[in-house]
Formats: sequence, C-alpha cells, structure tokens
Amino acid sequence: MLELRLVQGSLLKKVLEAIKDLVNDANFDCSATGFSLQAMDSSHVALVALLLRSEGFEHYRCDRNISMGINLSNMSKMLKCAGNDDIITIKADDGSDTVTFMFESPTQDKIADFEMKLMDIDSEHLGIPEAEYHAIVRMPSAEFSRICRDLSSIGDTVVISVTKEGVKFSTRGDIGTANIVCRQNTTVDKPEEATIIEMNEPVSLTFALRYLNSFTKASPLSNTVTISLSSELPVVVEYKIAEMGYIRFYLAPKIEEDEDETKP
Amino acid sequence: MLELRLVQGSLLKKVLEAIKDLVNDANFDCSATGFSLQAMDSSHVALVALLLRSEGFEHYRCDRNISMGINLSNMSKMLKCAGNDDIITIKADDGSDTVTFMFESPTQDKIADFEMKLMDIDSEHLGIPEAEYHAIVRMPSAEFSRICRDLSSIGDTVVISVTKEGVKFSTRGDIGTANIVCRQNTTVDKPEEATIIEMNEPVSLTFALRYLNSFTKASPLSNTVTISLSSELPVVVEYKIAEMGYIRFYLAPKIEEDEDETKP
Amino acid sequence: MLELRLVQGSLLKKVLEAIKDLVNDANFDCSATGFSLQAMDSSHVALVALLLRSEGFEHYRCDRNISMGINLSNMSKMLKCAGNDDIITIKADDGSDTVTFMFESPTQDKIADFEMKLMDIDSEHLGIPEAEYHAIVRMPSAEFSRICRDLSSIGDTVVISVTKEGVKFSTRGDIGTANIVCRQNTTVDKPEEATIIEMNEPVSLTFALRYLNSFTKASPLSNTVTISLSSELPVVVEYKIAEMGYIRFYLAPKIEEDEDETKP
Repeated sequence: MLELRLVQGSLLKKVLEAIKDLVNDANFDCSATGFSLQAMDSSHVALVALLLRSEGFEHYRCDRNISMGINLSNMSKMLKCAGNDDIITIKADDGSDTVTFMFESPTQDKIADFEMKLMDIDSEHLGIPEAEYHAIVRMPSAEFSRICRDLSSIGDTVVISVTKEGVKFSTRGDIGTANIVCRQNTTVDKPEEATIIEMNEPVSLTFALRYLNSFTKASPLSNTVTISLSSELPVVVEYKIAEMGYIRFYLAPKIEEDEDETKP
Repeated sequence: MLELRLVQGSLLKKVLEAIKDLVNDANFDCSATGFSLQAMDSSHVALVALLLRSEGFEHYRCDRNISMGINLSNMSKMLKCAGNDDIITIKADDGSDTVTFMFESPTQDKIADFEMKLMDIDSEHLGIPEAEYHAIVRMPSAEFSRICRDLSSIGDTVVISVTKEGVKFSTRGDIGTANIVCRQNTTVDKPEEATIIEMNEPVSLTFALRYLNSFTKASPLSNTVTISLSSELPVVVEYKIAEMGYIRFYLAPKIEEDEDETKP
Repeated sequence: MLELRLVQGSLLKKVLEAIKDLVNDANFDCSATGFSLQAMDSSHVALVALLLRSEGFEHYRCDRNISMGINLSNMSKMLKCAGNDDIITIKADDGSDTVTFMFESPTQDKIADFEMKLMDIDSEHLGIPEAEYHAIVRMPSAEFSRICRDLSSIGDTVVISVTKEGVKFSTRGDIGTANIVCRQNTTVDKPEEATIIEMNEPVSLTFALRYLNSFTKASPLSNTVTISLSSELPVVVEYKIAEMGYIRFYLAPKIEEDEDETKP
C-alpha cells in the first residue's frame, strides 16, 4: 500500500507544470527513500530526473517498491483541480491499476478524490554517473528564464560560455546577434539574487534554446537554478525543491555542425 | 415613457455578462414593479429569470408596461463602454423602436448616450410555480464556480448528491473519476464563506456541466449561490443581486440513460 | 560615430511599441539636435513624427548626421529584451551597416549587446508647415484611448466635434449610435486629469477609428494627449515624451462621402 501526504501540495502541482510539456508518459517510482521519476522527453533528446525524498512528506508509507505508469497530461489536469493551499495525498492499493489523488482544503471543509487509471510503460532506468564539471553557475532562476526567452526571439541556439568573470549567453539569427553577460556578483543583499561561478576551466557549449525554455518552466519551484557544464557532457540544469529534493534536466550540447545550420 | 436610473451601473454590466452567452435575444419587461427578463437559452434547455426591483433604482419611471426586444450581445457591447463607476440610465420613449443607455461618470465630466434598435421577439412567459425543494444548498459562489470548472476538465456531467453532512459533486470521464465533497460549515468567520444545507430528504441528480459552467458567469453578482434541488424538478441556481432582486437559472436533470452514455 | 545613452531606457521601448504596428520600415535620423523619425504608415494614410532631443540623453555623441534604415518589428523584438529599468545605449560606427543596442541593468551585473543589420530605405522627408488650428483639446491619454476603443465596438469612423463646452465623439454602426461628450474641466485635483479646450472656432471632423486606435498605443508615454483640429487639415495627435520631445501622429479627415458609406 502507498500513502504519501504532502502538506505543501502546490509543490506537486508545480512539478507537473514543469515536466508535462516535456514528457508525455512516465513511471513514477516509489520506494522507502522517496518518490522519483526519470524520463526522456518525447523526442529522446533531453532527460528529466525528479526526486522528492520521503522526509519531505508529512506521512510517507510505501510498503514495497512500486512503479506507476502515468500520463502526465492527465495527471496535470487532475492536480490543477487542487487549490494552491491544499494538502495532497497520493494513494494506491497493492496490485491496483489506479492511483488516487486526494485534495484537502486547509479548513478541511472541502475534500476531493481524483482517481486515475495507471498505464504500462516500458522504460529503462539510466544510471547517471557522478561527474566532475568544468564550471558550475548558480543564478536567479527568473534571470535564466528571462535570458532564454529573450534569446529565443533572435535565434534557435545559445552558446553558453563561462569564464571567471561571468557567464555569457550568445545567439544569432536572421535579424542579428545577441550577447548577454551576467557578471559574478556575490555581494548582493539577498543570497537568492547572487550569480556565483565555480570554474575549473573555461567552457563554451551550444544548446537548443527550445529545450532550455522548456526547462525553465520549473522556475516556480526555486528562486535559483544551477547550471553544470563540461565539454562533451550533457549540461545539468537543476532546480532544488525546498528541503525535499530536486528536479534536474540533462541536455547534450550541439556539435559544431548543428550550430552552423542556423547560420545564414 | 421609461426612465430608469441605476447608480451602481456595474450591476447591469454584470447581469449582461452573466446571460449574454446563454441567451441571444430576449424581451426585457418593464412594469411599475421592476425590470425583468425571462428567456430560454438558445438550445431551449435552460431558463434564465432576472428581476431588478424598482426600489433598487435611484429613479424609476415606467408609465406603462413595456416589453423591449433586445439582442443581448449588442446590448453587452454597449454596456462594456460604461465605466465600472458610471451611473447608467435606461430610457425609451413610448412607441419608440429604440432604447437609449446613458452613462454618466462619477464626476459628471463624461456623458455618453448609446442608442440601440429594438427587435420584435416572440416569447411566451412561463409561469414558474413555487415548489418545495428536497434540498437547498447555499455556498460561496466562487467555490461552486471552481468546482464546475474543475470537473469539466474530467467529465461532461456532474452528479450532485446532498446529505445532511454535505454536498458531493461527482463526475467520470476518459481519464478517471472525481468526487468533491463540501461539508456543511456554518461556523466560519465570514458568513459569505459558509456552506449551509437545508435538507428534507437526500437527493442525487445529474446535470450537464456545460450549462452549470455558463450559469457561474453570474458569480460576480453575488458572493453566495443557492442551489435548490428536487427529484424530477429542474434545479434552480440563484444569485441574489444586492437589495434589488436576483438572477435564477433553471436546468432539468439528465435522466439515467443520458448519464450512462458518458460511462466508458 | 554615434553613441546615445538613455538612462530611462523604457522610453525607447515604449516608443517602439507605439509605432511598430503602424510603420514597418523607417529611417531614424540622427543629428546634433536629436534622434528623430518621420514615416508614413504602410497604407500611406497616416504620418508619424518622433523627436528625442539630444539634451534628454545622458550622453549624446553624433559626429555627423546619419540616417539608419530599420525594420521596426525587428528593433522592437530586440528592445523587448531590455528590462524596464535598463539603461539603453544606441551605438553605430561610421559607415557601418549595423547598429548596436546595449542594455545595462541598474546594478551593472547584466550587460547585453544586440546587433542589428541596417537597411536602405527610400524616404522623402516631408516638410510639415506650422499651422493655426481651430481647436486644440488636451485630455487624459487613457480617456482618449478608452473612447476610441469603445466607439470601435459600434462603428468604423468617429466624428470629433469641438465646442467651447466640450468635445463630442460620435459614431454609428449596424447596432446603433453612440455619442460621448467630455466636458471642459480645469479644476480637477490632478492637472493630468484635466480636459482643456482652446477654441477659435467650432470644428467637426470625421476620422477612421482604426488609425486613432493605433495612435493610442503611445499612451504609456504620457498621461495627456493633445488633439489639434482644423477643417481640411490633418488632425495632429501628440504625446509628449517627458523633457525629451514628442511623438506626433497626423491623419487626414474623411470627406463626407466616406462617412456616408458607413451609414446603413
């Protein structure tokens, strides 16, 4: 039997909003450790990994490991019916082919049960090796989101270049070119507004803006985003989920030839 | 001659927004008692009844009963041109085929006259008998609106079941099922947030969500909605209009066969 | 070499929003006096004239007069990437076929460079003679904008009539007629809410609402708008740009026959 009670139900709503456009169907894996998901996007280019640790739930009962195949668009429809202040409980009986989402209003005056059919989804869990990154940039998630959106109005790909002084985002398109530099600034009043760069060696990589823009839908989950870059490794774009875990997006850099295609 | 001056002109704007998508053309009936309307929706399934009592107007002159045939979409276009704080006066000369809406800004610096052609509309006034209802639910109009909208994302019809403990709204659709229970709660701080159930006998009826969603467009008129239910009688969904009258929507329940159609 | 630094960069963003839907391509003319533009709309009916005087810039260097042919839609895309509090610098090297827009965030932590290709645009600069106007109306820009939008829901053209008492905006269409009168009111608490009429002789002119609605996109630039009217002269709709200059729209009145076409 599975019963996971999340007082801050809006977190689960935000998680679904962050991934539902990237991934159609996926297995949610539930174990004593936590509630997690790993899935490729529908075009098999990006990977998303979610972890909500058991300690983050008010009540967490998972008698045996189970994997629940879920259509994320349908799950999102159901979670949209939860109020932002609602407590959400995820329930499933052993061997059942359905999962139930229960929403309790803060005053307990309104209780909703939404029951959804589960699906069989083939998936292989990829082992993601721990890696050393050439550069790790931590910056406000709203800033990263704004930059990706702005550059999308000019071009299709972005070159992210990190030096000790800052991180540069560049694009080019039919109407011209754009370069945005964010300087390292650790002395701001609010820590969440800092841009902090840890760099072992300079790195410059090219990515499709379409995917980065999709990743930034996780911005409501965290004030800051961490971007980990190494040559020839997928970039990791991570949003921490307060005291519970994280959502991480992986995206392979485009090789030079791909980049050239976008040039006039 | 007809001259009705409504200081809180925004009420008339809200009335039009509440009914213009449900009803295309209708007769507004004006008598010494008040300004009223009764009309079927365009598919002849739902009935709307509006009453604005003469006492609610700052000035109310209606020399003889008249019936003004109006295209509600056009009237809505004109009322949208009134500011939310404007005083609205409705004027018609005896025997005239036009009606004039006058909008005065609170400072009297801006005065607008909108004149609209009247239409001949055949309509029979239905006598709506006073009925005893098995159950009457009073709840926040925003809550009712939210529930109807949420359930529409899952199914097409809703079963409304009332017991002494509360009212349950249920639906089912391709992606699963949903049940929302609102418990009776009379001890809230603000009376308009209470859910109050008067019940003579339990009742459970099925309705098309499409129409209920249309009715909830009247929510800006009132903080609370009253839902009156009896087996084999149309439900009455009523929004009071502060110290002036009401807008009531009537909708026949769906019979069992209709409900079954929506099951997989 | 050209280098114009505008601390209140949002002004330039607003200028582009005001004219980009009216004009596709235009020459920005830069001289020691200021940064200006004069262009016909794409249907050659309306004329827009912009002036940003050199004194309004924090730094203004323009070694020799240059004319930069620019696609306004592309320039608008780039300026949308500037934050509302950003400082904007316009840079161009002599003989270069590109212009660069630099955006600096208030904290200087984020610096963006957007480079855009220039175009060759044939244009003749029209001399606009100083004229005496029969009537000049100054009114809140939001009010003028609201009136033009409201009347557009009823008809296609507006008759603007000025008397000593006020200014009247009238239209007619299939669903009826509308008249909006704004009275002269000079004794309001806030000067920007006044409606002030300077009149030498009464005037009544007809204009296409489509263009007036387009002009009102400049409303964010100024709380007040000035409308200058004379029989058989184009109306001038002017929005002042705080301490820097103005944006002026010119539109020829419709002759009687045109007006008749819109009657039923």
